Amino acid sequence: MHTLYGNSISGNCWKPAFMLRQRGLPFRWVEVDILARQSRTPEFLAKNPNGRVPLLELPDGRFLAESNAMLLHLGEGTAWLPRDDYARAKVYEWLFFEQYSHEPYIATVRFWVAYMHKGQEWAEKIAEAMAKGKAALGVMETQLARTPFLVGESPSLADVALYAYTHVAPEGGYRLEEFPAVQAWLGRFAGLPGFVGMPCTGP
Amino acid sequence: MHTLYGNSISGNCWKPAFMLRQRGLPFRWVEVDILARQSRTPEFLAKNPNGRVPLLELPDGRFLAESNAMLLHLGEGTAWLPRDDYARAKVYEWLFFEQYSHEPYIATVRFWVAYMHKGQEWAEKIAEAMAKGKAALGVMETQLARTPFLVGESPSLADVALYAYTHVAPEGGYRLEEFPAVQAWLGRFAGLPGFVGMPCTGP
Repeated sequence: MHTLYGNSISGNCWKPAFMLRQRGLPFRWVEVDILARQSRTPEFLAKNPNGRVPLLELPDGRFLAESNAMLLHLGEGTAWLPRDDYARAKVYEWLFFEQYSHEPYIATVRFWVAYMHKGQEWAEKIAEAMAKGKAALGVMETQLARTPFLVGESPSLADVALYAYTHVAPEGGYRLEEFPAVQAWLGRFAGLPGFVGMPCTGP
Repeated sequence: MHTLYGNSISGNCWKPAFMLRQRGLPFRWVEVDILARQSRTPEFLAKNPNGRVPLLELPDGRFLAESNAMLLHLGEGTAWLPRDDYARAKVYEWLFFEQYSHEPYIATVRFWVAYMHKGQEWAEKIAEAMAKGKAALGVMETQLARTPFLVGESPSLADVALYAYTHVAPEGGYRLEEFPAVQAWLGRFAGLPGFVGMPCTGP
């Protein structure tokens, strides 16, 4: 059985849980309190030297870090990862976009505002991050005005990765009304068969 | 023929150029001046709505963004992307690590210090970023003290992605002497057959 070390409010941790469920793979959930620095203990660092969740322990006891690496690993051979070379490359593109241009501004602002309650104190830094987060939502809007899912007609790992923090962006103060194609896509994604949302508290 | 839109001082742009050369694929290089905001013109945004380089134009005229997506696309079917499921997943892991935990601190500090000349003015912000950059180098050191390349005995796309900005980290003020296994690996990588380094000014 797989074991998933994660934090239940984390969109990154929700991603592999979603894909394990889609695959019908049972898994054990181990809650890791990141505010209490439980991902930085010597025991945890021996499992993941980068000290982050999620961390996936495979049935054979080997470890895999990075939520989007887990998506690719678990999605291989399923309809979530297209076989066509170009469609597959576009999935990769969105996964890297998510970690570089989206998550650092959208997940981070949500965490600062909704969990650390720094909305007022860090107003300037939040405004800077939100400008970049809105740019990322704009890139999604451009694509989703053209196609129902990020890589064409069918849902893929790209949608899983981007759904994670986009749907909770309003917790950080983002106004999704400004991005109507993104809003419609969120509804479409949550209506997919077998959809289970956040918080993520195990199988 | 492929066309690569890039900036010749960018490690991200060097990555797909390296892999095109390894594959023996001829390509056209189009220099994009990012300081002059040439990646934000309407013409460029029509090609890549995220307004970044590198951007790869495939021989059929379709576009692919995100340097590490290009590595996966160009590396498929070669020894640079292992066939073994777990080794392949570990390559993915390092690629996401690079974009999330390494590049934002190591490439960015290099750019601020060596190209924007903000070493003094932004000293505090640089010190904060360098603490995270050193943590990333520490994660690499842990692995490279165990295996000659990031995913075991042979070089993979993980090494290409991490070589890009690690070897120029000293331009931002990082002291690689503190990471002897990383230093030895840099030498090993640069000694590989067909190695061509930066700056990247075309095929």
